[in-house]
Amino acid sequence: MAVIQELETPALLLDEAALERNLSRMREKMAHLGVALRPHVKTAKSIEVVRRALVGQPGGITVSTLKEAEYFFGQGIADILYAVGIAPSKLAHVTRLLAAGRKLTIILDSVAAAQAVGNAAAIAGVVVPVLIELDVDGHRSGVSPDSALLLDVGRAISSNRHLELRGVMTHAGESYNCASVEAIAEMAELERAGAVQAAQRLRKAGMPAPVVSVGSTPTATFAKNLAGVTEVRAGVYMFQDLVMHGIGVCRVEDIALSVLVQVIGHQPEKGWIITDGGWMCLSRDRGTSKQAVDQGYGLVRGANGGSLADDLILVSLSQEHGIAARRDGAPVAPERYPVGTLLRILPNHACATAAQHERYQVVSGGSEILKTWPRVNGWS
Amino acid sequence: MAVIQELETPALLLDEAALERNLSRMREKMAHLGVALRPHVKTAKSIEVVRRALVGQPGGITVSTLKEAEYFFGQGIADILYAVGIAPSKLAHVTRLLAAGRKLTIILDSVAAAQAVGNAAAIAGVVVPVLIELDVDGHRSGVSPDSALLLDVGRAISSNRHLELRGVMTHAGESYNCASVEAIAEMAELERAGAVQAAQRLRKAGMPAPVVSVGSTPTATFAKNLAGVTEVRAGVYMFQDLVMHGIGVCRVEDIALSVLVQVIGHQPEKGWIITDGGWMCLSRDRGTSKQAVDQGYGLVRGANGGSLADDLILVSLSQEHGIAARRDGAPVAPERYPVGTLLRILPNHACATAAQHERYQVVSGGSEILKTWPRVNGWS
Repeated sequence: MAVIQELETPALLLDEAALERNLSRMREKMAHLGVALRPHVKTAKSIEVVRRALVGQPGGITVSTLKEAEYFFGQGIADILYAVGIAPSKLAHVTRLLAAGRKLTIILDSVAAAQAVGNAAAIAGVVVPVLIELDVDGHRSGVSPDSALLLDVGRAISSNRHLELRGVMTHAGESYNCASVEAIAEMAELERAGAVQAAQRLRKAGMPAPVVSVGSTPTATFAKNLAGVTEVRAGVYMFQDLVMHGIGVCRVEDIALSVLVQVIGHQPEKGWIITDGGWMCLSRDRGTSKQAVDQGYGLVRGANGGSLADDLILVSLSQEHGIAARRDGAPVAPERYPVGTLLRILPNHACATAAQHERYQVVSGGSEILKTWPRVNGWS
Repeated sequence: MAVIQELETPALLLDEAALERNLSRMREKMAHLGVALRPHVKTAKSIEVVRRALVGQPGGITVSTLKEAEYFFGQGIADILYAVGIAPSKLAHVTRLLAAGRKLTIILDSVAAAQAVGNAAAIAGVVVPVLIELDVDGHRSGVSPDSALLLDVGRAISSNRHLELRGVMTHAGESYNCASVEAIAEMAELERAGAVQAAQRLRKAGMPAPVVSVGSTPTATFAKNLAGVTEVRAGVYMFQDLVMHGIGVCRVEDIALSVLVQVIGHQPEKGWIITDGGWMCLSRDRGTSKQAVDQGYGLVRGANGGSLADDLILVSLSQEHGIAARRDGAPVAPERYPVGTLLRILPNHACATAAQHERYQVVSGGSEILKTWPRVNGWS
């Protein structure tokens, strides 16, 4: 069997044992809350990972691109929510998928978008299933659950025979910035309450809203009650990362994703260990920079994933170079990490780091490569 | 002919007219200084771009990965410098290329690395051409030009019959952080003087150093004298970007690379225009954050690349969403940018943004797509 020592660095590693633990934990959490999980595949972009995430679930997924939708439909996934507000230039693609019998649901948050989708659907002779996107935390897109606009958008959809109003969805993206587990639990309740309120307002006005979809990994992890919610969307929980660790969602040992890099030199006076892993393989994400513990561009572990005697982080990156140094700035003798030493970097942000790679080398606690799983990157 | 309005967004655009102007300017600069250009392909990763960059030059290129080396050898490039300190796990690949008759030169900066390369070369029965990497500005890797270590590394190479000492190379990466054109010119002289000094010390000690290689786009642009230098390496000058603009290397109009995105919604009270271009298509690079003018995550232009009446920048990104807003924070009426409006985002960092895409849609000042050029991403 191949081992990681034979890989050319940098290479993306996925620890299957940690992955399975993360999947089980979320599965149990959802069962405890009595809600279905619609995994968001934007982090993993891998059918192998997603099949494992779907164990015990209805089978629907969430995607972030139409390329993901194409790929996962082709792999046998039957029910897909495209959870980015629809852009008019993508409507021909959407209606083509629907005309081919695919069950694809889109989201939107304006009357103008509803009209654009309705027009495209009429031309294509299809009916487009639609969720209204809600804004519960001021994070990004969506209409407010208590706004008049919600009902206006609802009517623009429900009155159009080429559109099918399926309900509402929201994503409490601000949960990533919460300072405590209690704050995340409050955010989860805000997300739930807003989505349920919006669905009830639509129903009271005579419109259908069978779907009440919420989610983010932090809120899914710490929600205490999801009454009225029909499905939860989450993605990064599969791999976890240092940002999730920093807000209490996981332990460092739960991080299933890492980048294997190699020592290529030293600057002893500065305490620098130069590696061949730069922002190209890690991304420029600095998601921990405002957290209580700043992990630089990533936390350094040993070749097999264990902690090192030195507390090393990546302090600087260029395209194909990463500089590791002790967090406390103390010098590190070069002979502790000779040229050729393999290291694993735990990423700040799993979605961004995985996106820099075409495949996962799957390991399980050791150095054997059990299998290789491809990813579906890009947009077209 | 296809037009950009038919593309699904986000999509990477390359303006050929701006590209050709950038290439001409550098060609003239090198001719004026009497030095050969060895273009660095890490930004473009495209044979079409590189062929144009090589007009009037000897034909050698610089790469940042062995995958680039494989690809460009396959496309007919005969002389390649792999400009990242060699990692031991890549030596089997390097010696395989050399055994196949490829002219690949590597770099290193330690006796340990020289020994590792020598051992691999002996096993493979090849001779590996080597440059010693120099550190002239404390930026990253390399040995100091005035150090005893330089001669030690030189001897470790020149005394090994499986290694061929070809000379020295350095990259003044700190030039990206210079505050003025004058400071960049001084950095160029530091780079030149250090490299020439190192080569002279090697020669004086009886070692060969025919190659004296320097470069970065800023220092190449503002160098006044390159006496003693045999070649210049630069890459981002082909496309330019907001970081280069911020340090005076180019004008905004010279930026040849942009990402086409589309308006998908608004948050009118906040003055936000929501687009479908997030960090996945732009990267998380915030290279202008410490410059005199902070460009957020990118500068917003019209569909055809022209400036807008509003001074819009991207103020926030998530994976597939970008929030555009006026730089001064003033509100923007949604009807100025209706859902479906196409916008071009000029990137902070061309290398990082281009890396998020598989191909270039080549335009030239307008909306027609003249051709599509693939990129070579990844490592293996």
